[in-house]
Amino acid sequence: MIRIALDLMGGDKAPEEIKTGAFMYAEFLKKSKINNVKIHIVGLPEHVKDFESHPLREFFVIVPTRDFLPMDIKPTEALRRKESSMYVCSQMLKEKQVDAIVSAGNTGALLACATLVVGRIKGIERPALAVPVPSLKGFTVLIDAGANAEVKPEWLVQFAEMGIEYAKLLGIPDPKVGLLNVGTEENKGTEREKQAYALLKERYGARFHGNVEGSDINLGTVDVVVTDGFSGNIAMKTMEGVAKLISTIIKQEAKKSVDGILGALLFARTLKRLKKKLDPRSYGGTFFLGVDGLVIKAHGNSDRVAIKNALEVARRGVENQLVEKLRRSLGREVND
Amino acid sequence: MIRIALDLMGGDKAPEEIKTGAFMYAEFLKKSKINNVKIHIVGLPEHVKDFESHPLREFFVIVPTRDFLPMDIKPTEALRRKESSMYVCSQMLKEKQVDAIVSAGNTGALLACATLVVGRIKGIERPALAVPVPSLKGFTVLIDAGANAEVKPEWLVQFAEMGIEYAKLLGIPDPKVGLLNVGTEENKGTEREKQAYALLKERYGARFHGNVEGSDINLGTVDVVVTDGFSGNIAMKTMEGVAKLISTIIKQEAKKSVDGILGALLFARTLKRLKKKLDPRSYGGTFFLGVDGLVIKAHGNSDRVAIKNALEVARRGVENQLVEKLRRSLGREVND
Repeated sequence: MIRIALDLMGGDKAPEEIKTGAFMYAEFLKKSKINNVKIHIVGLPEHVKDFESHPLREFFVIVPTRDFLPMDIKPTEALRRKESSMYVCSQMLKEKQVDAIVSAGNTGALLACATLVVGRIKGIERPALAVPVPSLKGFTVLIDAGANAEVKPEWLVQFAEMGIEYAKLLGIPDPKVGLLNVGTEENKGTEREKQAYALLKERYGARFHGNVEGSDINLGTVDVVVTDGFSGNIAMKTMEGVAKLISTIIKQEAKKSVDGILGALLFARTLKRLKKKLDPRSYGGTFFLGVDGLVIKAHGNSDRVAIKNALEVARRGVENQLVEKLRRSLGREVND
Repeated sequence: MIRIALDLMGGDKAPEEIKTGAFMYAEFLKKSKINNVKIHIVGLPEHVKDFESHPLREFFVIVPTRDFLPMDIKPTEALRRKESSMYVCSQMLKEKQVDAIVSAGNTGALLACATLVVGRIKGIERPALAVPVPSLKGFTVLIDAGANAEVKPEWLVQFAEMGIEYAKLLGIPDPKVGLLNVGTEENKGTEREKQAYALLKERYGARFHGNVEGSDINLGTVDVVVTDGFSGNIAMKTMEGVAKLISTIIKQEAKKSVDGILGALLFARTLKRLKKKLDPRSYGGTFFLGVDGLVIKAHGNSDRVAIKNALEVARRGVENQLVEKLRRSLGREVND
C-alpha cells in the first residue's frame, strides 16, 4: 500500500482547492483502477469531515489536527507549532506511518520540517527543490529551484550530486551538469560561483560542462542546472511569466485579423499542447531532494489540478523508490 | 551633430558582425534621410580601413587603435589597457569628442571603463543596466539586468531611482516599483532583500509595490523591477531561452498535422510579430544608467542586426537627452 499524507491547510487556495484536488485524485485512482493508494488527509476537523461522507471514502484516511500554518509563517515558528497540519504530516513521514507527504504551504516552513523533523540523507547538508523544466532536449533538472535563498559553494556540489541522480532516475544515463551564472567564462559571477566552479570541475571533470546562462536552461545545453534557491526561483517564475505573456499575445494578435482567427482555430491543438508543456501546474509538485523521505512541495498557489498532479508525483516517487535510490547512490558517492 | 563611438572590436562576433552592423546602420540613416549622425569607428587599423573605401564613407569617422580587449578580460586589466578600442571609446566620451558609445564587449570591463573613465552621475554609487522587457502592460524596466553581480541594499534604492526616471522618459508618468524576490511576503529573501525592502518602503511609500516574483516581470505587475545584476541577468537570459523554446516547439508541432501546417501558414504574421516582440536583438542595446555619459552595452553575441539596433538606441538616447534628464532628476532627488 502506498500511503500519501496531504496537508489540507497549506497553500494560497487552501483548504478548498486542496480538498477538491484530493477528490479529483481519488476519482483518477478509481478510474485508473489503482487500488494500492491511501491519501491521509491532514487538517482541521471542520475541513477533514468533508471526506467522511465522500463517495470515494475508501481512498482516504482522516487525520484531524488542531493547528495549521499561515502562508507567511517563519521557519523557526513552524518548528514550534507541532500540532499544525504540516508538522503532523512530517512527523507521520518520520515515523513511517506514510510513504510521502504533499504540501502547498510555505516553502521555508516545509523545508524546515523536512530537514529537522524528517531528517536528511547522509552527506547532504541542505535539501533542495529539483524541478524538471521543459527544454529543447526534453527536460532539464533545475536544482535548487527555491529552497535555499543563500547557499555555500559546497552545497552547490551536493545539489549537483542530487540533480545527477534525479536525472538518471528520469532516464538520462550520463547527465551533464552546468553551473548557472551570468556568463560562460570561468571567472564569472560572485565568489560563491567561482568557488563552486572549481569544486565542480574537480569532482566531475568532463561531466561538468562549466558555467551556463539563463537561456541554457530551456535550450537544454546540459541535463542538470545547479544554482542557489534565489536564482533558481527567479528563473522558474520568469519562465511562468514569459509563457503567460506569449499565450496572451498569441490570443490578442490572433483576434486582429481573419487570417489570425482562422489560423488560431486550426492551430488550436498545437497551442494546447504547447500550453500543457509549459503549464507549471502540470509539474504538480517538486521533490525536496536530500530529505530522508519523500516530500513534495506543490506551488503555493496550487489549484485543484496542481494538487491532483502533485499527489500523482508522490505516488510515482514512492513506486520508483526515489528516496531509496538517492540514499544508495549518495551514500556511495559520499564515501568514495 | 550626433556623434556615436562604436567599439569595433568588442563582442563574440567582432569585428565582422560589428562592421556589417555599422554598414547597415549607415544605410538606414541614408534611407531615413537622417543626416546629423557620425559614427566613430574605433578599432585595429586592419579592420577600420574597410570603412575608408565604403560608399557611405560620409557617415563614418575612423579612429584606429593599437589594442583591443578579449571577451574574458578582467575589469581591472581592462582599465590598464588604455589603447584598447573600448578604453579609447570611453576616453572620447569623457572628453566630449562623442555623445555616446556602443560596445558589445565584456560587460564588467565596459562597466569599469564607464564608471572610472567616463564617471558617474552625482548620487549614484554604481551604474546599472536597465532593460525595458516586454510585458502584458507594454514593458517593464528591469534594473540591474547584469552590471553588478553583487550589490548593497542602498544600491538597489539607487537602481530604483534610475529605473523610475528611465520609465518616465519612456512615457510612464507615475511608475510603480517592485523588488524582485522569491515571494511577495515582506520577510522573503536574503538579508539584502529584507534591508532593501525597508529602504524602498521608507523612500517611496505607495509607489513601492513591495516584493514581486519572476513571473511579475513579464506580467507587468509593476513598471520597474529592481534587482541585483546576478538575478537580473538570469531573468533576462531565461526569457530568451523560453522564447526560443516556445518558437521551436510551435514550429515542430505545426509540422505534425495538416491542421497545424495550415494554421501555421495563416498564423505566420501573428508569430512573426510575437517573435519580433520577444527577440533580444530588437532591444539592440541597453543603457548603463548612472554613468555621466551615454554608454550602450550591446549583447555579447550581437550580430549585425543587434549592432544596427544598438546604434539607433544610442542615437535616440542622445536625441532625447537621456543623460541630461537623469542628471537633473537624480540631482534633485538626491538633494531632497
